[in-house]
Amino acid sequence: MLFTKDASDSISTLGEIALIQQIRRWLGSVSPPAPAGIGDDCAVLDPLPKGHAILTTDSISYGQHFDDRVSANHAGAKLIKRNLSDIAAMGGMPGAAVLALLSGPDLSVRWLQNFFAGIRHACEHYALPLVGGDISTLLPGHFSAVLTLTGTALSPRLRSAAQLGDMLYVTGSLGGSMLGKHYSFKPRLAEGQWLSTRSDCHAMMDLSDGLGKDLQSLLPGDACAQLKLDQIPVANAAIKIAMDSGREVMEHVFCDGEDYELLFSMDATIDPSGFKNAWRQRFPETPLSCIGSIQAGPSTWPYLDAHTQKALPWTHGFEHWK
Amino acid sequence: MLFTKDASDSISTLGEIALIQQIRRWLGSVSPPAPAGIGDDCAVLDPLPKGHAILTTDSISYGQHFDDRVSANHAGAKLIKRNLSDIAAMGGMPGAAVLALLSGPDLSVRWLQNFFAGIRHACEHYALPLVGGDISTLLPGHFSAVLTLTGTALSPRLRSAAQLGDMLYVTGSLGGSMLGKHYSFKPRLAEGQWLSTRSDCHAMMDLSDGLGKDLQSLLPGDACAQLKLDQIPVANAAIKIAMDSGREVMEHVFCDGEDYELLFSMDATIDPSGFKNAWRQRFPETPLSCIGSIQAGPSTWPYLDAHTQKALPWTHGFEHWK
Repeated sequence: MLFTKDASDSISTLGEIALIQQIRRWLGSVSPPAPAGIGDDCAVLDPLPKGHAILTTDSISYGQHFDDRVSANHAGAKLIKRNLSDIAAMGGMPGAAVLALLSGPDLSVRWLQNFFAGIRHACEHYALPLVGGDISTLLPGHFSAVLTLTGTALSPRLRSAAQLGDMLYVTGSLGGSMLGKHYSFKPRLAEGQWLSTRSDCHAMMDLSDGLGKDLQSLLPGDACAQLKLDQIPVANAAIKIAMDSGREVMEHVFCDGEDYELLFSMDATIDPSGFKNAWRQRFPETPLSCIGSIQAGPSTWPYLDAHTQKALPWTHGFEHWK
Repeated sequence: MLFTKDASDSISTLGEIALIQQIRRWLGSVSPPAPAGIGDDCAVLDPLPKGHAILTTDSISYGQHFDDRVSANHAGAKLIKRNLSDIAAMGGMPGAAVLALLSGPDLSVRWLQNFFAGIRHACEHYALPLVGGDISTLLPGHFSAVLTLTGTALSPRLRSAAQLGDMLYVTGSLGGSMLGKHYSFKPRLAEGQWLSTRSDCHAMMDLSDGLGKDLQSLLPGDACAQLKLDQIPVANAAIKIAMDSGREVMEHVFCDGEDYELLFSMDATIDPSGFKNAWRQRFPETPLSCIGSIQAGPSTWPYLDAHTQKALPWTHGFEHWK
């Protein structure tokens, strides 16, 4: 049977990270190692005359990634931009997209028209064609949409290329995305493309599940991140939401997810103020923060406070099914 | 609101074909004309040094495309093969695939392992790598999977290239797929590739919604199909299922859907017996039937009985949401 009442057999008990490891094992040779396979923001496909083809897929479902407080227009744009954020994380440029719609028969045509207006607007803005798709049926009251996006990257930036000593940077500010940024964000395409032209930018990814969870996949084995808490850019929304939740602001900053900012590592030898100046000239409107560095360290804990050397507790992020 | 109780605003009232037309209108310039966009079995992307890149997406949902009578293994294989059938319909070869899983937290790990065993087996058999994907949450008891498949086609065969006078062929036999073929079929990849090397093969598609619905999209404007009913290959399953349903066997042959056979048109000047011999030498195990031809005809009705010139009633196929 598909669904189980035996908790020990359910995917929610296994958890997302363990499940993905299982899937790779189940697939065996059909699942090539990253970057050609599972494990980065996009899969890197065959080399082209210039650069590489890249491929990513991402979905939104009613009740999970958006609800009645989000307009149809914003929901449609969110689907496109989530995928664009994965392209940005490779330093890529978007190509053609295909869309699978899964919906109950009672979906409103008027709502769907606005959903497609959001898709169209985002596709026009980022110059990507929607070239095909599929429509299939669900029970009444259910709606999901899956977008698969192709792209090209001249020099793809991988998660796995981070090195000991690298400095860690993030764009924008983090936390509290539930208050609106989860759909109103701008994918950092131009920033990612520019970074991928610099040989001193080693590794890059986008923050979708939260810094707390995502940063771990950028750390080499036997390394930890030494983080300067006072340099981590706190979104106003994280402060606002902490007032309601009663939790620490930093927990929201690390664990809320859906920031869609870039996290990247730069060679230890760069001149930080020169880099910051170059950034400001190129992207005057995109905040940039150096939040710490990658150091050899106890493999028992991924994050340390750079000032106190104490372990930081926020190692989880948004975990599906939890 | 997403969902409506006003029947006049629901997508089920609009119907699938009208909805796809609406979507193309809503997307405007973001939706390029076929074959670069919506309207064929795959989208045909940029030219490669040799041939073209092609792209398709297709999904399966529990309760819609399979139920508890279908093993997890067969469900997984079906998802891969549905997409391969679209690649076959272009005369293409499959490339990398990405998979989006949408599932309730109560999905059984044991079931999912068997689902991936089916995926792996099909991917190994057809030599395609699964390079990435996405996992996201639904309410308990729900499961969908969406596969997007890339490919290449040296000389893509389009639906729109059929000409007046062309002879119509189908592979295999039609109808009654519900009894098992809907998951146990073999995508006609080698057949599609071979046909795409022949300049006398003008147009090609796969039969997923049923001959009754699908053949219409192969007919040029102002044309009808003159069909030889005694030449249409009837599956044993169609006869069996008609005994239970009380409907005509031919209705099942035309309207059941999920045959995953190739429908293609050949130039009027070919030597039919020479072509049939060449086919038999190349594909001794794949039945081939010449079911009629494309003729200038009354645009009011798509199908005529070639012997009696009477209109044939089976113009619908599997319609989502009906």
